[in-house]
Amino acid sequence: LRLKPPVPLPAWKSQPIVTQKIPNAGPIADLLQRKAYSSSFNRQLRHPSWVLEHITKETLIRGEGVDRSKSRFQEDKDIPEKFRAKLLDYVRSGYDRGHMAPAADAKTTQETLNETFLLTNIAPQVGNGFNRDYWAHFEEFCRRLVTNEEFKDVYVFTGPAYLPKKDETDQKFYVKYEIIGNPPNIAVPTHFFKVILATKDDPSKPEGELHALGAFLLPNDRISNTTPLQTFDVPLDALERVTGLTFFDQAIKDSSIHLCKVSKCILVA
Amino acid sequence: LRLKPPVPLPAWKSQPIVTQKIPNAGPIADLLQRKAYSSSFNRQLRHPSWVLEHITKETLIRGEGVDRSKSRFQEDKDIPEKFRAKLLDYVRSGYDRGHMAPAADAKTTQETLNETFLLTNIAPQVGNGFNRDYWAHFEEFCRRLVTNEEFKDVYVFTGPAYLPKKDETDQKFYVKYEIIGNPPNIAVPTHFFKVILATKDDPSKPEGELHALGAFLLPNDRISNTTPLQTFDVPLDALERVTGLTFFDQAIKDSSIHLCKVSKCILVA
Ligand SMILES: [Mg+2]
Ligand SMILES: [Mg+2]
Repeated sequence: LRLKPPVPLPAWKSQPIVTQKIPNAGPIADLLQRKAYSSSFNRQLRHPSWVLEHITKETLIRGEGVDRSKSRFQEDKDIPEKFRAKLLDYVRSGYDRGHMAPAADAKTTQETLNETFLLTNIAPQVGNGFNRDYWAHFEEFCRRLVTNEEFKDVYVFTGPAYLPKKDETDQKFYVKYEIIGNPPNIAVPTHFFKVILATKDDPSKPEGELHALGAFLLPNDRISNTTPLQTFDVPLDALERVTGLTFFDQAIKDSSIHLCKVSKCILVA
Repeated sequence: LRLKPPVPLPAWKSQPIVTQKIPNAGPIADLLQRKAYSSSFNRQLRHPSWVLEHITKETLIRGEGVDRSKSRFQEDKDIPEKFRAKLLDYVRSGYDRGHMAPAADAKTTQETLNETFLLTNIAPQVGNGFNRDYWAHFEEFCRRLVTNEEFKDVYVFTGPAYLPKKDETDQKFYVKYEIIGNPPNIAVPTHFFKVILATKDDPSKPEGELHALGAFLLPNDRISNTTPLQTFDVPLDALERVTGLTFFDQAIKDSSIHLCKVSKCILVA
Protein backbone atom coordinates (compact mmCIF):
# COMPACT_ATOMS: atom_id res chain seq x y z
CA LEU A 1 0.00 0.00 0.00
CA ARG A 2 1.46 3.30 -1.09
CA LEU A 3 0.60 6.15 1.23
CA LYS A 4 -0.85 9.43 0.09
CA PRO A 5 1.78 12.16 -0.07
CA PRO A 6 1.51 14.54 2.85
CA VAL A 7 0.01 17.99 2.41
CA PRO A 8 2.60 20.14 0.64
CA LEU A 9 3.74 23.08 2.70
CA PRO A 10 5.13 26.09 0.83
CA ALA A 11 7.92 26.94 3.28
CA TRP A 12 8.97 23.34 3.68
CA LYS A 13 11.53 22.67 0.99
CA SER A 14 13.81 25.62 1.60
CA GLN A 15 14.35 24.82 5.26
CA PRO A 16 17.51 23.40 6.76
CA ILE A 17 16.33 20.16 8.36
CA VAL A 18 13.11 19.06 6.82
CA THR A 19 13.70 18.24 3.20
CA GLN A 20 11.82 16.46 0.49
CA LYS A 21 13.55 13.32 1.70
CA ILE A 22 11.92 13.74 5.12
CA PRO A 23 8.42 14.99 4.38
CA ASN A 24 6.06 16.55 6.89
CA ALA A 25 4.98 13.74 9.21
CA GLY A 26 1.59 15.35 9.75
CA PRO A 27 -0.81 15.28 11.38
CA ILE A 28 -2.60 15.60 8.07
CA ALA A 29 -6.11 16.99 8.47
CA ASP A 30 -7.77 15.34 5.49
CA LEU A 31 -10.06 17.95 3.99
CA LEU A 32 -13.06 16.34 2.36
CA GLN A 33 -15.26 18.47 0.18
CA ARG A 34 -18.68 16.92 -0.34
CA LYS A 35 -21.67 18.42 -2.08
CA ALA A 36 -23.58 18.97 1.17
CA TYR A 37 -20.73 19.57 3.61
CA SER A 38 -17.00 19.93 4.18
CA SER A 39 -15.22 17.75 6.69
CA SER A 40 -11.78 17.67 8.26
CA PHE A 41 -10.80 14.17 9.37
CA ASN A 42 -8.68 13.46 12.43
CA ARG A 43 -6.33 10.56 11.65
CA GLN A 44 -5.49 9.92 15.27
CA LEU A 45 -9.01 9.82 16.69
CA ARG A 46 -10.58 8.41 13.48
CA HIS A 47 -13.52 10.79 13.37
CA PRO A 48 -13.93 14.26 11.91
CA SER A 49 -12.45 17.25 13.73
CA TRP A 50 -15.38 19.24 12.36
CA VAL A 51 -17.99 19.14 9.63
CA LEU A 52 -19.27 22.35 8.07
CA GLU A 53 -22.68 22.81 6.48
CA HIS A 54 -24.28 25.74 4.73
CA ILE A 55 -28.03 25.49 5.21
CA THR A 56 -30.52 27.54 3.21
CA LYS A 57 -34.20 27.15 2.27
CA GLU A 58 -33.02 25.54 -0.99
CA THR A 59 -30.72 22.95 0.59
CA LEU A 60 -33.61 21.79 2.80
CA ILE A 61 -35.90 20.90 -0.14
CA ARG A 62 -36.34 17.17 -0.47
CA GLY A 63 -35.63 15.91 -3.98
CA GLU A 64 -38.06 13.55 -5.63
CA GLY A 65 -37.57 9.96 -4.58
CA VAL A 66 -34.80 10.78 -2.15
CA ASP A 67 -35.11 8.20 0.58
CA ARG A 68 -33.07 7.60 3.70
CA SER A 69 -33.77 3.86 3.58
CA LYS A 70 -31.68 3.69 0.38
CA SER A 71 -28.60 5.09 2.19
CA ARG A 72 -26.01 2.86 3.82
CA PHE A 73 -23.24 3.76 6.24
CA GLN A 74 -19.96 3.43 4.36
CA GLU A 75 -16.24 3.54 5.04
CA ASP A 76 -14.48 6.45 3.36
CA LYS A 77 -11.89 5.30 0.83
CA ASP A 78 -10.47 8.85 0.69
CA ILE A 79 -8.75 8.09 4.00
CA PRO A 80 -5.71 5.79 3.90
CA GLU A 81 -6.66 2.33 5.17
CA LYS A 82 -4.35 2.72 8.17
CA PHE A 83 -6.29 5.68 9.55
CA ARG A 84 -9.77 4.81 8.35
CA ALA A 85 -12.85 4.37 10.55
CA LYS A 86 -14.36 0.95 9.90
CA LEU A 87 -17.96 -0.23 9.99
CA LEU A 88 -16.87 -3.13 12.20
CA ASP A 89 -15.55 -0.75 14.85
CA TYR A 90 -19.12 0.33 15.63
CA VAL A 91 -20.61 -3.16 15.74
CA ARG A 92 -21.69 -4.04 19.30
CA SER A 93 -19.86 -0.95 20.56
CA GLY A 94 -22.99 0.32 22.28
CA TYR A 95 -22.72 3.63 20.40
CA ASP A 96 -24.71 5.04 17.51
CA ARG A 97 -23.01 6.10 14.32
CA GLY A 98 -23.81 9.75 14.91
CA HIS A 99 -24.06 12.08 11.91
CA MET A 100 -22.19 15.37 12.23
CA ALA A 101 -23.90 16.89 9.17
CA PRO A 102 -27.40 15.47 9.75
CA ALA A 103 -28.94 13.31 7.04
CA ALA A 104 -32.09 15.43 7.28
CA ASP A 105 -30.10 18.49 6.10
CA ALA A 106 -29.03 16.81 2.85
CA LYS A 107 -32.11 15.46 1.11
CA THR A 108 -31.74 17.43 -2.12
CA THR A 109 -30.45 14.37 -3.99
CA GLN A 110 -29.82 10.74 -3.09
CA GLU A 111 -26.12 11.49 -3.59
CA THR A 112 -26.00 14.32 -1.05
CA LEU A 113 -27.94 12.17 1.39
CA ASN A 114 -25.65 9.18 0.86
CA GLU A 115 -22.58 11.37 1.46
CA THR A 116 -23.73 12.05 5.01
CA PHE A 117 -23.44 8.30 5.71
CA LEU A 118 -19.69 8.26 5.02
CA LEU A 119 -17.83 7.48 8.25
CA THR A 120 -15.86 10.73 7.78
CA ASN A 121 -19.13 12.46 8.73
CA ILE A 122 -19.72 10.18 11.70
CA ALA A 123 -18.61 9.90 15.33
CA PRO A 124 -19.70 7.59 18.16
CA GLN A 125 -22.70 9.03 20.00
CA VAL A 126 -24.81 7.82 22.88
CA GLY A 127 -28.05 6.66 21.21
CA ASN A 128 -30.98 6.91 23.63
CA GLY A 129 -31.38 10.31 25.19
CA PHE A 130 -28.79 11.90 22.94
CA ASN A 131 -28.42 11.10 19.21
CA ARG A 132 -32.01 9.91 18.93
CA ASP A 133 -33.42 12.59 21.21
CA TYR A 134 -31.90 15.82 22.51
CA TRP A 135 -29.20 16.08 19.83
CA ALA A 136 -31.78 15.37 17.10
CA HIS A 137 -33.94 18.22 18.44
CA PHE A 138 -30.89 20.45 18.40
CA GLU A 139 -30.34 19.58 14.73
CA GLU A 140 -33.96 20.45 14.06
CA PHE A 141 -33.38 23.77 15.84
CA CYS A 142 -30.70 24.61 13.25
CA ARG A 143 -33.07 23.90 10.38
CA ARG A 144 -35.80 26.00 11.99
CA LEU A 145 -33.52 29.03 11.90
CA VAL A 146 -34.06 28.89 8.14
CA THR A 147 -37.60 27.53 7.95
CA ASN A 148 -39.20 29.38 10.86
CA GLU A 149 -36.96 32.31 11.77
CA GLU A 150 -36.16 33.77 8.36
CA PHE A 151 -32.41 33.48 8.50
CA LYS A 152 -31.06 33.37 4.95
CA ASP A 153 -27.79 31.52 5.36
CA VAL A 154 -26.95 29.27 8.28
CA TYR A 155 -23.42 27.92 8.62
CA VAL A 156 -22.96 25.15 11.14
CA PHE A 157 -19.72 23.59 12.37
CA THR A 158 -20.38 20.31 14.16
CA GLY A 159 -17.77 18.16 15.84
CA PRO A 160 -16.43 16.19 18.79
CA ALA A 161 -14.61 17.52 21.84
CA TYR A 162 -12.66 16.07 24.77
CA LEU A 163 -13.06 17.79 28.11
CA PRO A 164 -11.07 17.26 31.29
CA LYS A 165 -12.77 16.45 34.58
CA LYS A 166 -11.42 17.20 38.03
CA ASP A 167 -10.64 14.10 40.06
CA GLU A 168 -11.95 14.84 43.54
CA THR A 169 -9.39 12.61 45.25
CA ASP A 170 -6.20 14.17 43.85
CA GLN A 171 -7.68 17.48 42.60
CA LYS A 172 -6.03 16.98 39.20
CA PHE A 173 -7.67 17.28 35.79
CA TYR A 174 -7.95 14.21 33.58
CA VAL A 175 -9.34 13.52 30.14
CA LYS A 176 -10.72 10.01 29.78
CA TYR A 177 -12.39 8.52 26.75
CA GLU A 178 -13.21 5.10 25.35
CA ILE A 179 -11.85 3.72 22.09
CA ILE A 180 -14.13 1.37 20.18
CA GLY A 181 -13.12 -1.37 17.77
CA ASN A 182 -10.95 -4.42 18.22
CA PRO A 183 -8.11 -3.59 17.94
CA PRO A 184 -9.22 -0.22 19.38
CA ASN A 185 -9.67 2.26 16.55
CA ILE A 186 -12.22 5.08 16.99
CA ALA A 187 -12.23 7.49 19.94
CA VAL A 188 -15.53 8.21 21.69
CA PRO A 189 -15.84 11.96 22.30
CA THR A 190 -16.83 13.17 25.73
CA HIS A 191 -18.74 16.07 24.13
CA PHE A 192 -20.08 17.41 20.84
CA PHE A 193 -20.25 21.01 19.71
CA LYS A 194 -22.14 23.07 17.20
CA VAL A 195 -21.01 26.54 16.23
CA ILE A 196 -23.83 28.29 14.39
CA LEU A 197 -23.52 31.44 12.29
CA ALA A 198 -26.91 32.61 11.05
CA THR A 199 -27.22 35.61 8.77
CA LYS A 200 -30.07 37.68 7.39
CA ASP A 201 -30.42 41.00 5.61
CA ASP A 202 -30.43 44.04 7.85
CA PRO A 203 -29.88 47.42 6.21
CA SER A 204 -28.99 48.97 9.59
CA LYS A 205 -25.89 46.73 9.95
CA PRO A 206 -22.45 47.03 8.34
CA GLU A 207 -22.56 45.45 4.87
CA GLY A 208 -26.33 45.21 5.30
CA GLU A 209 -26.14 41.85 7.02
CA LEU A 210 -26.93 40.73 10.52
CA HIS A 211 -24.57 38.05 11.91
CA ALA A 212 -25.84 35.92 14.78
CA LEU A 213 -23.34 33.56 16.33
CA GLY A 214 -23.75 30.86 18.96
CA ALA A 215 -21.51 28.08 20.29
CA PHE A 216 -22.95 25.10 22.14
CA LEU A 217 -21.14 22.23 23.82
CA LEU A 218 -23.13 19.17 24.91
CA PRO A 219 -22.02 16.09 26.82
CA ASN A 220 -22.14 12.84 24.82
CA ASP A 221 -24.70 11.49 27.23
CA ARG A 222 -28.43 11.27 27.94
CA ILE A 223 -29.91 14.75 28.24
CA SER A 224 -33.44 15.34 29.46
CA ASN A 225 -35.67 17.06 26.91
CA THR A 226 -36.56 19.64 29.55
CA THR A 227 -32.97 20.92 29.74
CA PRO A 228 -32.83 24.43 28.21
CA LEU A 229 -30.49 24.73 25.21
CA GLN A 230 -28.85 27.75 26.82
CA THR A 231 -27.43 25.40 29.47
CA PHE A 232 -24.93 24.38 26.78
CA ASP A 233 -24.14 27.85 25.49
CA VAL A 234 -20.36 28.43 25.77
CA PRO A 235 -18.10 31.33 24.83
CA LEU A 236 -16.71 30.64 21.35
CA ASP A 237 -13.27 31.45 22.70
CA ALA A 238 -13.54 28.66 25.31
CA LEU A 239 -14.65 26.19 22.65
CA GLU A 240 -11.70 27.17 20.47
CA ARG A 241 -9.32 26.65 23.36
CA VAL A 242 -10.58 23.18 24.16
CA THR A 243 -10.73 21.95 20.56
CA GLY A 244 -7.62 23.73 19.25
CA LEU A 245 -9.75 24.96 16.34
CA THR A 246 -10.42 28.47 15.04
CA PHE A 247 -13.98 29.02 13.84
CA PHE A 248 -14.64 31.98 11.53
CA ASP A 249 -12.35 34.94 11.26
CA GLN A 250 -12.07 37.76 13.73
CA ALA A 251 -14.09 40.18 11.60
CA ILE A 252 -17.10 37.86 11.67
CA LYS A 253 -16.73 37.28 15.40
CA ASP A 254 -16.51 41.03 16.05
CA SER A 255 -19.54 41.85 13.92
CA SER A 256 -21.79 39.18 15.43
CA ILE A 257 -24.39 39.29 18.14
CA HIS A 258 -25.26 36.24 20.17
CA LEU A 259 -27.69 33.90 18.43
CA CYS A 260 -29.90 33.67 21.51
CA LYS A 261 -30.46 37.44 21.41
CA VAL A 262 -32.18 37.25 18.04
CA SER A 263 -33.56 33.73 18.17
CA LYS A 264 -35.53 31.98 20.85
CA CYS A 265 -32.94 29.35 21.72
CA ILE A 266 -35.61 26.80 22.45
CA LEU A 267 -35.70 23.20 21.27
CA VAL A 268 -38.91 21.62 20.07
CA ALA A 269 -39.00 18.03 21.29
CA LEU B 1 -6.04 40.09 19.61
CA ARG B 2 -6.11 39.30 15.93
CA LEU B 3 -5.72 35.63 15.16
CA LYS B 4 -3.23 34.29 12.67
CA PRO B 5 -4.89 33.42 9.39
CA PRO B 6 -5.36 29.69 9.00
CA VAL B 7 -3.08 27.68 6.75
CA PRO B 8 -4.15 28.35 3.15
CA LEU B 9 -5.30 25.26 1.34
CA PRO B 10 -5.01 25.28 -2.45
CA ALA B 11 -8.30 23.50 -3.15
CA TRP B 12 -10.22 25.51 -0.60
CA LYS B 13 -11.53 28.56 -2.42
CA SER B 14 -13.11 26.86 -5.38
CA GLN B 15 -15.28 24.56 -3.30
CA PRO B 16 -19.02 24.86 -2.88
CA ILE B 17 -19.43 25.26 0.87
CA VAL B 18 -16.22 26.38 2.39
CA THR B 19 -15.41 29.82 1.09
CA GLN B 20 -13.02 32.57 2.02
CA LYS B 21 -15.76 33.83 4.29
CA ILE B 22 -15.63 30.56 6.23
CA PRO B 23 -11.95 29.64 6.36
CA ASN B 24 -10.57 26.24 7.32
CA ALA B 25 -11.21 25.85 11.05
CA GLY B 26 -8.08 23.74 11.44
CA PRO B 27 -6.65 21.97 13.29
CA ILE B 28 -3.63 23.96 12.23
CA ALA B 29 -0.40 22.06 12.77
CA ASP B 30 1.95 25.00 13.33
CA LEU B 31 5.16 24.12 11.55
CA LEU B 32 8.13 25.68 13.29
CA GLN B 33 11.46 25.64 11.51
CA ARG B 34 14.34 26.21 13.89
CA LYS B 35 18.04 26.00 13.15
CA ALA B 36 18.49 22.74 15.05
CA TYR B 37 15.09 21.12 14.55
CA SER B 38 11.65 21.30 12.99
CA SER B 39 8.56 21.01 15.12
CA SER B 40 4.85 20.59 14.50
CA PHE B 41 2.76 22.00 17.33
CA ASN B 42 -0.56 20.51 18.45
CA ARG B 43 -2.95 23.33 19.36
CA GLN B 44 -5.33 21.07 21.21
CA LEU B 45 -2.82 19.26 23.43
CA ARG B 46 -0.42 22.25 23.67
CA HIS B 47 2.74 20.29 22.99
CA PRO B 48 4.47 19.29 19.75
CA SER B 49 3.07 16.42 17.68
CA TRP B 50 6.66 15.69 16.69
CA VAL B 51 10.07 17.29 16.57
CA LEU B 52 12.56 16.33 13.87
CA GLU B 53 16.33 16.55 14.19
CA HIS B 54 19.11 15.83 11.75
CA ILE B 55 22.18 14.78 13.73
CA THR B 56 25.66 14.57 12.23
CA LYS B 57 29.20 14.73 13.63
CA GLU B 58 29.18 18.46 12.84
CA THR B 59 25.91 19.27 14.63
CA LEU B 60 27.29 17.61 17.79
CA ILE B 61 30.32 19.90 18.05
CA ARG B 62 30.04 22.26 20.98
CA GLY B 63 30.61 25.90 20.02
CA GLU B 64 32.92 28.03 22.11
CA GLY B 65 31.26 29.45 25.18
CA VAL B 66 27.98 27.68 24.52
CA ASP B 67 26.55 27.02 27.94
CA ARG B 68 23.32 25.39 29.05
CA SER B 69 23.17 27.53 32.16
CA LYS B 70 22.62 30.57 29.93
CA SER B 71 19.47 29.02 28.41
CA ARG B 72 16.00 29.63 29.83
CA PHE B 73 12.75 27.84 29.12
CA GLN B 74 10.56 30.22 27.13
CA GLU B 75 7.03 30.45 25.81
CA ASP B 76 6.81 30.43 22.03
CA LYS B 77 5.31 33.63 20.66
CA ASP B 78 4.91 31.97 17.24
CA ILE B 79 1.85 30.22 18.68
CA PRO B 80 -1.31 32.33 19.16
CA GLU B 81 -1.76 33.17 22.86
CA LYS B 82 -4.95 31.10 23.00
CA PHE B 83 -3.17 27.86 22.16
CA ARG B 84 0.22 28.54 23.72
CA ALA B 85 1.92 26.41 26.37
CA LYS B 86 2.78 28.60 29.37
CA LEU B 87 5.67 28.44 31.82
CA LEU B 88 3.14 28.67 34.66
CA ASP B 89 1.40 25.49 33.50
CA TYR B 90 4.47 23.47 34.50
CA VAL B 91 4.97 25.11 37.89
CA ARG B 92 4.26 22.62 40.70
CA SER B 93 2.79 20.21 38.13
CA GLY B 94 5.12 17.46 39.26
CA TYR B 95 6.38 17.02 35.69
CA ASP B 96 9.64 17.99 34.05
CA ARG B 97 9.69 20.23 31.02
CA GLY B 98 10.96 17.44 28.79
CA HIS B 99 12.94 18.35 25.66
CA MET B 100 11.88 16.57 22.48
CA ALA B 101 15.00 17.68 20.56
CA PRO B 102 17.54 17.30 23.39
CA ALA B 103 19.54 20.35 24.45
CA ALA B 104 22.68 18.21 24.20
CA ASP B 105 22.08 17.76 20.45
CA ALA B 106 22.13 21.50 19.77
CA LYS B 107 25.28 22.95 21.29
CA THR B 108 26.73 24.41 18.09
CA THR B 109 25.69 27.94 19.05
CA GLN B 110 23.97 29.53 22.02
CA GLU B 111 21.08 30.29 19.66
CA THR B 112 20.54 26.66 18.63
CA LEU B 113 20.76 25.60 22.26
CA ASN B 114 18.30 28.29 23.37
CA GLU B 115 15.84 27.21 20.67
CA THR B 116 15.52 23.81 22.30
CA PHE B 117 14.14 25.53 25.42
CA LEU B 118 11.11 26.92 23.56
CA LEU B 119 7.95 25.28 24.93
CA THR B 120 7.12 24.17 21.37
CA ASN B 121 9.99 21.69 21.83
CA ILE B 122 8.78 20.59 25.26
CA ALA B 123 6.24 18.17 26.72
CA PRO B 124 5.51 17.09 30.30
CA GLN B 125 7.71 14.15 31.29
CA VAL B 126 8.12 12.17 34.47
CA GLY B 127 11.41 13.41 35.92
CA ASN B 128 13.06 10.76 38.10
CA GLY B 129 13.51 7.45 36.36
CA PHE B 130 12.49 8.84 32.98
CA ASN B 131 13.53 12.28 31.68
CA ARG B 132 16.56 12.42 33.97
CA ASP B 133 17.45 8.76 33.54
CA TYR B 134 16.28 6.18 31.02
CA TRP B 135 15.07 8.69 28.44
CA ALA B 136 18.32 10.67 28.76
CA HIS B 137 20.30 7.48 28.07
CA PHE B 138 18.10 6.87 25.06
CA GLU B 139 18.93 10.35 23.78
CA GLU B 140 22.61 9.57 24.28
CA PHE B 141 22.09 6.35 22.29
CA CYS B 142 20.97 8.46 19.32
CA ARG B 143 24.11 10.60 19.48
CA ARG B 144 26.32 7.50 19.76
CA LEU B 145 24.99 6.29 16.40
CA VAL B 146 27.02 9.16 14.96
CA THR B 147 29.92 9.34 17.41
CA ASN B 148 30.54 5.62 18.01
CA GLU B 149 28.80 3.69 15.25
CA GLU B 150 29.83 5.66 12.18
CA PHE B 151 26.41 6.55 10.90
CA LYS B 152 26.69 9.66 8.75
CA ASP B 153 23.22 11.15 9.01
CA VAL B 154 20.77 10.39 11.80
CA TYR B 155 17.22 11.71 11.54
CA VAL B 156 15.15 11.48 14.70
CA PHE B 157 11.45 12.16 15.13
CA THR B 158 10.55 12.56 18.81
CA GLY B 159 7.08 13.08 20.17
CA PRO B 160 4.24 12.25 22.54
CA ALA B 161 1.67 9.48 22.20
CA TYR B 162 -1.58 8.50 23.89
CA LEU B 163 -2.24 4.79 24.30
CA PRO B 164 -5.43 3.07 25.39
CA LYS B 165 -5.48 0.62 28.28
CA LYS B 166 -7.93 -2.20 28.76
CA ASP B 167 -10.15 -1.80 31.81
CA GLU B 168 -10.27 -5.22 33.42
CA THR B 169 -13.72 -4.67 34.90
CA ASP B 170 -15.63 -3.80 31.70
CA GLN B 171 -13.08 -5.10 29.15
CA LYS B 172 -13.23 -1.81 27.24
CA PHE B 173 -10.31 0.31 26.08
CA TYR B 174 -9.81 3.78 27.54
CA VAL B 175 -7.30 6.55 27.04
CA LYS B 176 -6.71 8.60 30.17
CA TYR B 177 -4.30 11.47 30.60
CA GLU B 178 -3.76 14.38 32.92
CA ILE B 179 -3.91 18.04 31.90
CA ILE B 180 -1.62 20.41 33.79
CA GLY B 181 -2.09 24.12 34.36
CA ASN B 182 -4.88 26.03 36.03
CA PRO B 183 -7.08 26.38 34.08
CA PRO B 184 -5.97 23.04 32.59
CA ASN B 185 -3.84 23.69 29.51
CA ILE B 186 -1.16 21.13 28.59
CA ALA B 187 -1.84 17.41 28.11
CA VAL B 188 0.50 14.89 29.75
CA PRO B 189 1.34 12.15 27.24
CA THR B 190 1.06 8.53 28.35
CA HIS B 191 4.04 7.65 26.12
CA PHE B 192 6.88 9.12 24.08
CA PHE B 193 8.29 7.84 20.82
CA LYS B 194 11.45 8.16 18.81
CA VAL B 195 11.63 7.13 15.18
CA ILE B 196 15.26 6.91 14.14
CA LEU B 197 16.55 6.78 10.56
CA ALA B 198 20.32 6.28 10.48
CA THR B 199 22.19 6.23 7.19
CA LYS B 200 25.73 5.44 6.11
CA ASP B 201 27.51 4.81 2.83
CA ASP B 202 27.24 1.27 1.54
CA PRO B 203 28.18 0.68 -2.10
CA SER B 204 26.32 -2.66 -2.09
CA LYS B 205 22.95 -0.95 -1.46
CA PRO B 206 20.64 0.91 -3.86
CA GLU B 207 21.86 4.50 -4.19
CA GLY B 208 24.94 3.45 -2.26
CA GLU B 209 23.31 4.13 1.08
CA LEU B 210 22.33 1.90 3.94
CA HIS B 211 19.09 2.93 5.68
CA ALA B 212 18.55 1.67 9.21
CA LEU B 213 15.18 2.42 10.76
CA GLY B 214 13.84 1.86 14.25
CA ALA B 215 10.72 2.96 16.12
CA PHE B 216 10.56 2.96 19.91
CA LEU B 217 7.63 3.75 22.18
CA LEU B 218 8.27 4.25 25.89
CA PRO B 219 5.83 4.85 28.74
CA ASN B 220 6.03 8.28 30.37
CA ASP B 221 7.00 6.62 33.63
CA ARG B 222 9.96 5.40 35.68
CA ILE B 223 11.91 2.80 33.73
CA SER B 224 14.65 0.73 35.30
CA ASN B 225 18.05 1.21 33.69
CA THR B 226 18.31 -2.55 33.30
CA THR B 227 15.34 -2.68 30.89
CA PRO B 228 16.62 -3.53 27.40
CA LEU B 229 15.86 -0.86 24.77
CA GLN B 230 14.41 -3.53 22.51
CA THR B 231 11.54 -3.90 25.00
CA PHE B 232 10.22 -0.65 23.48
CA ASP B 233 10.82 -1.53 19.84
CA VAL B 234 7.50 -1.26 17.96
CA PRO B 235 6.53 -1.72 14.32
CA LEU B 236 6.60 1.69 12.63
CA ASP B 237 3.18 0.92 11.22
CA ALA B 238 1.73 0.47 14.72
CA LEU B 239 3.26 3.75 15.85
CA GLU B 240 1.79 5.52 12.83
CA ARG B 241 -1.64 4.09 13.62
CA VAL B 242 -1.62 5.25 17.21
CA THR B 243 -0.25 8.73 16.53
CA GLY B 244 -2.06 9.38 13.23
CA LEU B 245 1.30 10.45 11.79
CA THR B 246 3.21 9.25 8.72
CA PHE B 247 6.95 9.06 9.22
CA PHE B 248 9.14 8.99 6.10
CA ASP B 249 7.89 7.96 2.71
CA GLN B 250 7.22 4.45 1.58
CA ALA B 251 10.44 4.22 -0.47
CA ILE B 252 12.55 4.89 2.61
CA LYS B 253 10.55 2.40 4.65
CA ASP B 254 10.90 -0.25 1.97
CA SER B 255 14.65 0.24 1.58
CA SER B 256 15.42 0.14 5.31
CA ILE B 257 16.60 -2.61 7.58
CA HIS B 258 15.87 -2.58 11.29
CA LEU B 259 18.21 -0.39 13.28
CA CYS B 260 18.84 -3.13 15.84
CA LYS B 261 20.19 -5.39 13.08
CA VAL B 262 23.08 -3.04 12.36
CA SER B 263 23.48 -1.37 15.74
CA LYS B 264 23.70 -2.88 19.18
CA CYS B 265 20.47 -1.42 20.55
CA ILE B 266 22.00 -1.06 23.99
CA LEU B 267 21.75 1.96 26.28
CA VAL B 268 24.75 3.11 28.28
CA ALA B 269 23.55 4.27 31.68
MG1 LIG C 1 -27.91 11.79 14.57
MG1 LIG D 1 15.18 15.59 28.74
